[in-house]
Amino acid sequence: MYNFRTDLTVERSEIYKNKNNANFIDGIETEEIDKNHIKITRVFITNENGEKAIEKPIGDYITIDIDRVKGIGDERIEEISAIVAEELKTIIKKHIDDKQEILVVGLGNIYVTPDALGPKVIPELDVTRHILKYMPNLISIDARSVAAIAPGVLGITGIETAEVIKGIVDNIHPKLLIVIDALAAKNIQRISSSVQISDTGIVPGGGVENKRKEISERTLGIPVIAMGIPTVVESAVLVNDCLDLFITKLQNDAQSNEYLNKMKEQDNYEEIKEALMPSEYNMIVTPKEIDELIENMKDIVARGINMAIQ
Amino acid sequence: MYNFRTDLTVERSEIYKNKNNANFIDGIETEEIDKNHIKITRVFITNENGEKAIEKPIGDYITIDIDRVKGIGDERIEEISAIVAEELKTIIKKHIDDKQEILVVGLGNIYVTPDALGPKVIPELDVTRHILKYMPNLISIDARSVAAIAPGVLGITGIETAEVIKGIVDNIHPKLLIVIDALAAKNIQRISSSVQISDTGIVPGGGVENKRKEISERTLGIPVIAMGIPTVVESAVLVNDCLDLFITKLQNDAQSNEYLNKMKEQDNYEEIKEALMPSEYNMIVTPKEIDELIENMKDIVARGINMAIQ
Amino acid sequence: MYNFRTDLTVERSEIYKNKNNANFIDGIETEEIDKNHIKITRVFITNENGEKAIEKPIGDYITIDIDRVKGIGDERIEEISAIVAEELKTIIKKHIDDKQEILVVGLGNIYVTPDALGPKVIPELDVTRHILKYMPNLISIDARSVAAIAPGVLGITGIETAEVIKGIVDNIHPKLLIVIDALAAKNIQRISSSVQISDTGIVPGGGVENKRKEISERTLGIPVIAMGIPTVVESAVLVNDCLDLFITKLQNDAQSNEYLNKMKEQDNYEEIKEALMPSEYNMIVTPKEIDELIENMKDIVARGINMAIQ
Amino acid sequence: MYNFRTDLTVERSEIYKNKNNANFIDGIETEEIDKNHIKITRVFITNENGEKAIEKPIGDYITIDIDRVKGIGDERIEEISAIVAEELKTIIKKHIDDKQEILVVGLGNIYVTPDALGPKVIPELDVTRHILKYMPNLISIDARSVAAIAPGVLGITGIETAEVIKGIVDNIHPKLLIVIDALAAKNIQRISSSVQISDTGIVPGGGVENKRKEISERTLGIPVIAMGIPTVVESAVLVNDCLDLFITKLQNDAQSNEYLNKMKEQDNYEEIKEALMPSEYNMIVTPKEIDELIENMKDIVARGINMAIQ
Repeated sequence: MYNFRTDLTVERSEIYKNKNNANFIDGIETEEIDKNHIKITRVFITNENGEKAIEKPIGDYITIDIDRVKGIGDERIEEISAIVAEELKTIIKKHIDDKQEILVVGLGNIYVTPDALGPKVIPELDVTRHILKYMPNLISIDARSVAAIAPGVLGITGIETAEVIKGIVDNIHPKLLIVIDALAAKNIQRISSSVQISDTGIVPGGGVENKRKEISERTLGIPVIAMGIPTVVESAVLVNDCLDLFITKLQNDAQSNEYLNKMKEQDNYEEIKEALMPSEYNMIVTPKEIDELIENMKDIVARGINMAIQ
Repeated sequence: MYNFRTDLTVERSEIYKNKNNANFIDGIETEEIDKNHIKITRVFITNENGEKAIEKPIGDYITIDIDRVKGIGDERIEEISAIVAEELKTIIKKHIDDKQEILVVGLGNIYVTPDALGPKVIPELDVTRHILKYMPNLISIDARSVAAIAPGVLGITGIETAEVIKGIVDNIHPKLLIVIDALAAKNIQRISSSVQISDTGIVPGGGVENKRKEISERTLGIPVIAMGIPTVVESAVLVNDCLDLFITKLQNDAQSNEYLNKMKEQDNYEEIKEALMPSEYNMIVTPKEIDELIENMKDIVARGINMAIQ
Repeated sequence: MYNFRTDLTVERSEIYKNKNNANFIDGIETEEIDKNHIKITRVFITNENGEKAIEKPIGDYITIDIDRVKGIGDERIEEISAIVAEELKTIIKKHIDDKQEILVVGLGNIYVTPDALGPKVIPELDVTRHILKYMPNLISIDARSVAAIAPGVLGITGIETAEVIKGIVDNIHPKLLIVIDALAAKNIQRISSSVQISDTGIVPGGGVENKRKEISERTLGIPVIAMGIPTVVESAVLVNDCLDLFITKLQNDAQSNEYLNKMKEQDNYEEIKEALMPSEYNMIVTPKEIDELIENMKDIVARGINMAIQ
Repeated sequence: MYNFRTDLTVERSEIYKNKNNANFIDGIETEEIDKNHIKITRVFITNENGEKAIEKPIGDYITIDIDRVKGIGDERIEEISAIVAEELKTIIKKHIDDKQEILVVGLGNIYVTPDALGPKVIPELDVTRHILKYMPNLISIDARSVAAIAPGVLGITGIETAEVIKGIVDNIHPKLLIVIDALAAKNIQRISSSVQISDTGIVPGGGVENKRKEISERTLGIPVIAMGIPTVVESAVLVNDCLDLFITKLQNDAQSNEYLNKMKEQDNYEEIKEALMPSEYNMIVTPKEIDELIENMKDIVARGINMAIQ
């Protein structure tokens, strides 16, 4: 899992605009669409100014916010998958042709429920590479070659995920990589109810994570589309979000004061994190229903990919 | 899962003492022991006054606080299990003889990781009832008859757990029941690092849960020992705990004010809960490492029971 | 798992007819239908003569032979489920009204793949008992009350399955019981590709199994419909089946002799079993693909029941 | 899973000796040792004559026959692991120094119980490569660098296992490869109760499997130690084994004849296979208890490797 807190570009963009009291940033284009109770936000970072503004590389960033994943049935999963597929298809087409080989990589640890999404998607994918290679008569002549792998995590394999992927890419030469990854959300509402797609790969952030190697076109030589799904949240983020709600309630009840009002206006995440750290209270948490959320998200992501690439 | 927030008697007792500025409550005796980096707190409610003071029925309440369950090895699990076994043995002896039949019930849902503890303990237990009944020559003449069952949850079976247990108790006539249950903690530090044992059974609280039927001597006619393990926590509890830490930090940095100081002194749980409810932010969460925590806790509880009852 | 070898009534009936050189048995009526590449065989034992002839109690015995369960998709599963549902519905209607309460019991051990079918069906069922009881406004007024439970196995619980069921039946008073059980097949072709439905309950056979208690109207006071799915086979059965094929091949190649010809005509199961026993070669085996077969059969049985009872 | 039927070298050697009425083969040395109810057979193929005789390349072949894996406890697992470790250590020392890097590869499909052994061993291994690389102060200076991966199967990834391994080997440069693989046994007694170790890698056989690529020093440039554990058996093998037992019994009962006597003396596997093929009766089967067998074998193999390599 990469990049705690600020994974989601939409949020960064919002933060920037709030900070700078701006409705528009040069080098950043934004679209918002509602389809079938699903909000799609597309952020296009088109030049270096945009890049600097939100500290994310030039590229497309799509966030699909699903109202509710818990307790949904097969029909709703199909609807959501179709929307994911459409966004994914558009971004793939910007980089490769219809028949060029794709490798899908499911990051994460199958033995840790909130981190198991990537590995769980892999066996659900319609892989075709081996059929095209060994039994070509069993498949349509127009089928795209698709391969898929779950390389495991550093703690179990002792090998950087980026190294495993590099080895495979160098050996089987796909033209594009899709990487599925469980993320940490900044906003508790996004936990397991949002899919972020971008074509800039995975660039690990600072802190402990900075030993992780980048998975991107720069390191692999082919375009990398990342599909990130928030499945966990830091306590500090949760507290920060809830504090705002709590102060709002105090304000409504005329119980707030200047200090609290100010607190609400600013982002207190860093201070809260600092306060929780010494007591080991800044845990990473996940909803109690995570098994079901992962199961439904696995179906959405797997079907979305299957529809998008064939 | 029963009784959100105030499951743990020690906490209630502390809250009462804080509220009443008292070191001692008539009808409540308390012992605290440290063994091998494990804190054992025993609360004995001995009369009606104690009962009223902390709103829990007369009986023994033992809380075993384990410093750390994450990442521990087999040897440490064995040490902790021995301590759990000792406490359990003492409380069992108050109610039945060494050879009287015990039925162990693992509450919870095997398909929901933080709720799977009870069902996961059951197959690890040394059940003997069938051996004593059908192959008595294979077992020591002094062995106690032990049976064990995981009855599932209302949402899957459509049957109240209490009804299933009543049916079995009426049919096989054990002399004592041990019920294993995953709880919600009031304090995030207790999540999956604490075991509470009591001999007053499980008495569901108010709210949504009040449809749940009681599992106790009153309803079943035999003593019921409950083993509760906190595996989840409400957002409001988490925020309440973290808020205190945050205000402490603000105080240290001379950034607090009167309002915040007052907030810290009182319990803001109810207000926070009220503030989070409308936005569906008052989720029940569990640590990211819940799979491992449940695995280790399963070993501790199962071995503890096995050592205690034979 | 009950009644090795001769679980399947159709086979007994065939054996009897072969032995007695008869096309017709008084007290036994037989129907064979083909629907959608599925063979349905209905055997009705209508009097004591039939009962004696094939050593099975008076009642209906339906066998649904599915050509292939391995590698099938969702659409085929739906087709098969509909056929299972139809047969099940007919047999249920013979015993209770449309609105009378049903309890479904999934026998078997969730931790042993070929024995996990029963427990895996239970969470897929549309249980309604608790909704009708506690939230009746959420459900159609015509809904039938359905409860479901997986009571575990003797080796884990120490309690006879029949005892657990009796306890629950006496407490919640359903009007009919459906019992799902994994069986041992006599014929390797039937492994995980056949469903047997009967309304005579489960009557354990001789040998080791004779300690098991009966699950039937006689013991429970309500009609018991058993759904049996063969998931394992004895080596001796496999060898017996294969020996016949092998001798056929020798005959075709003019390599057989009188002794082998005679062997083929008779049932050598008992002799083969006797030969294998001392070397512990008479293992119970299951196909390598058992995980997938159980998964598909679980869907077929669960959907079949859901369609049949509401 | 590779090389049906003749995986186990010991068997080939026996077959050759039986066929040629020989006690000794030039180029083949054999040792048999009994330790703690475990039979260790070491076959050393030392020259081309030996190579031709049993159609296996020059190298060491060790077979560890464990009397019983079902129902064993932790102590027995530890004893067996120590024996596996000793054999493994000896064969590793022939190829690399104590500190040279090892990569362990767990072949197989985690979703197919009898094929899940390899992937299940991987998370149990003490991998050190990442610690030596990123946190060297946390580990003994003498620790060997160990990495481990479960690359998945062709049907799920679309990529030949050999290709994935080649990519990783070329990227991280281990000095020796250990490959864990589930095999098909010729002899039903060996199912999940035997471990074969050899230093000649995995060389796929004929038939359908011939599309599989070799995993060996020839293809990877480093020594490859294969650890094979039989977990399944063909029906034809089972029938062949049982047929012999059955004829023995007929002989004892004076019921055999010349034809059967001759059948017993020769290997009828090919004829039986041919007879079963058209009816799809030549299934691959596995014992009913496969879940437990895999669990115990996973512990034996993982602990054996951990003890052998550090």
